[in-house]
Amino acid sequence: MISVAILGAGNVATHLFKAFSKKEGVFVSQWYNRHIDTLASYKNEVDVIDDLSQLKDADVYIMAVSDDVIANLSSQLPFENRLVVHTSGSVSVYDIDKKHKRGVLYPLQTFSKNAEIDFANVPICIETINKACYPLLKQLARSLGSPTKRVNSDQRRVLHLAAVFVNNFTNQLYRIGHEITESEGAEFDLLKPLILETALKVQNHSPFTAQTGPAKRHDKKTIKKHLKALENPHHKNIYELLTESIQHTHGRKKL
Amino acid sequence: MISVAILGAGNVATHLFKAFSKKEGVFVSQWYNRHIDTLASYKNEVDVIDDLSQLKDADVYIMAVSDDVIANLSSQLPFENRLVVHTSGSVSVYDIDKKHKRGVLYPLQTFSKNAEIDFANVPICIETINKACYPLLKQLARSLGSPTKRVNSDQRRVLHLAAVFVNNFTNQLYRIGHEITESEGAEFDLLKPLILETALKVQNHSPFTAQTGPAKRHDKKTIKKHLKALENPHHKNIYELLTESIQHTHGRKKL
Ligand SMILES: NC(=O)c1ccc[n+]([C@@H]2O[C@H](COP(=O)([O-])OP(=O)(O)OC[C@H]3O[C@@H](n4cnc5c(N)ncnc54)[C@H](OP(=O)(O)O)[C@@H]3O)[C@@H](O)[C@H]2O)c1
Ligand SMILES: NC(=O)c1ccc[n+]([C@@H]2O[C@H](COP(=O)([O-])OP(=O)(O)OC[C@H]3O[C@@H](n4cnc5c(N)ncnc54)[C@H](OP(=O)(O)O)[C@@H]3O)[C@@H](O)[C@H]2O)c1
Repeated sequence: MISVAILGAGNVATHLFKAFSKKEGVFVSQWYNRHIDTLASYKNEVDVIDDLSQLKDADVYIMAVSDDVIANLSSQLPFENRLVVHTSGSVSVYDIDKKHKRGVLYPLQTFSKNAEIDFANVPICIETINKACYPLLKQLARSLGSPTKRVNSDQRRVLHLAAVFVNNFTNQLYRIGHEITESEGAEFDLLKPLILETALKVQNHSPFTAQTGPAKRHDKKTIKKHLKALENPHHKNIYELLTESIQHTHGRKKL
Repeated sequence: MISVAILGAGNVATHLFKAFSKKEGVFVSQWYNRHIDTLASYKNEVDVIDDLSQLKDADVYIMAVSDDVIANLSSQLPFENRLVVHTSGSVSVYDIDKKHKRGVLYPLQTFSKNAEIDFANVPICIETINKACYPLLKQLARSLGSPTKRVNSDQRRVLHLAAVFVNNFTNQLYRIGHEITESEGAEFDLLKPLILETALKVQNHSPFTAQTGPAKRHDKKTIKKHLKALENPHHKNIYELLTESIQHTHGRKKL
């Protein structure tokens, strides 16, 4: 049985707590947050605390707190030589105070408070400074049913960066689709099956193979029509840059 | 029973033929292609032809051919006053020769030869010049099990344009994710659940509500780190432009 203390009560911390609570082989012994009110509804399920000095012995301390407080919180922990990890894609493992055994459990998924998460769909990227810490973290991630992958700092960094492209930037393209359709009173809903199919296609094909459309076909006539139709200069810039990017990838450089 | 003649033998034509063949209420009476070889494997299922003069009476003629041949092919059809439609998102309905009753059946989905398509996930946008042609086209689309939507020219045009953003451009962002991860020997596969979750989220939430990440949070530190990490100037430009776009949408204009 692995004993875990969770620090933080945001999206990631809450999903982790709920998932651990349902699984065998893991036991959340304490849950810390600076504001204890946030944890009030869990107080019958777990020892909730807002005072770091009350932290007891645990196999792993998971700091699921905002990126810029990781360093400071880790140095405030009133013990040393225990395994302390954060859950960030972009913060260095060396930001954790060096008095601890240090690691990272980076869940490569988007969490939001209300959406249910199945951890089978959350690859967990594990980084440790000391090899000896790896098996326990792997076992912990596996207990959630998550695929796991050992990564180094550079790999975690590029995965986080790539996640911004495929998640935040993609979502902004959906938003632009929404703006464009609404401008003519057309329904964004009509685009939803296409959005899903586009994401499904790359589950089994490379994005390179999956590409279609006027940019790849170098269909100047359609591209010209589209640029003319786009009234918003921001949308136009994005159209031009991504068309150029597709043509660069598929062997044609200029619009 | 609606009788249909299909013209063209590409992605859309082939998927339409296969779907119609399985459905009640529709009968593909003839299938034309300029190269009859392409249709050879279907010759026991349908009357295949490569000579327009052999076209018989049908309730609807569907021209699923390349955009720039629609006008010419329609004028070569050796009859008039019959219902002739194309399947393009971007070609005007008026490109069809005016000797015909004219319409559009625009399937808002991405088709490729090998991928199976369930027409329940293919919204069909219907445009007609004459209102009287609409009910038959709607019945035809419904017989495929597709959701249908009556659109005008402007709406079809913006839907096609928005489709380029949410399909081709999104796919290019996946491609960039692939390039970035590979550059450090990280696995693109780790991003696949996130790609799917991002598309699933907007099935029930608006893209505006679904947005997260450093751009929306105006997290300058992470943005700076990311821009520094991006070695490819194309990737950097796209990062900057989409970050700006997100901040514009969410109330902050500048990087
Ligand atoms: N959300 C995602 O999709 C996602 C995905 C992968 C990784 N991550 C990473 O997971 C970590 C947590 O993210 P999140 O989305 O769960 O964040 P969040 O929902 O914003 O929650 C942040 C937590 O940090 C706590 N906190 C903030 N400032 C603090 C301080 N000065 N002292 C102590 N605690 C403080 C907050 O406490 P209060 O409740 O008292 O405000 C809150 O519990 C971050 O490193 C993030 O990069 C997030
Ligand atoms: N693919 C999609 O995802 C999609 C989605 C929605 C709408 N559409 C629209 O559907 C239509 C067909 O697209 P597609 O993807 O099926 O195209 P495609 O796979 O490239 O097939 C094009 C067809 O047009 C025929 N053709 C080309 N030039 C011709 C000519 N001069 N005379 C007679 N026939 C000619 C081709 O004949 P050969 O076989 O002899 O070359 C082929 O059968 C287009 O208007 C497109 O905009 C496509």
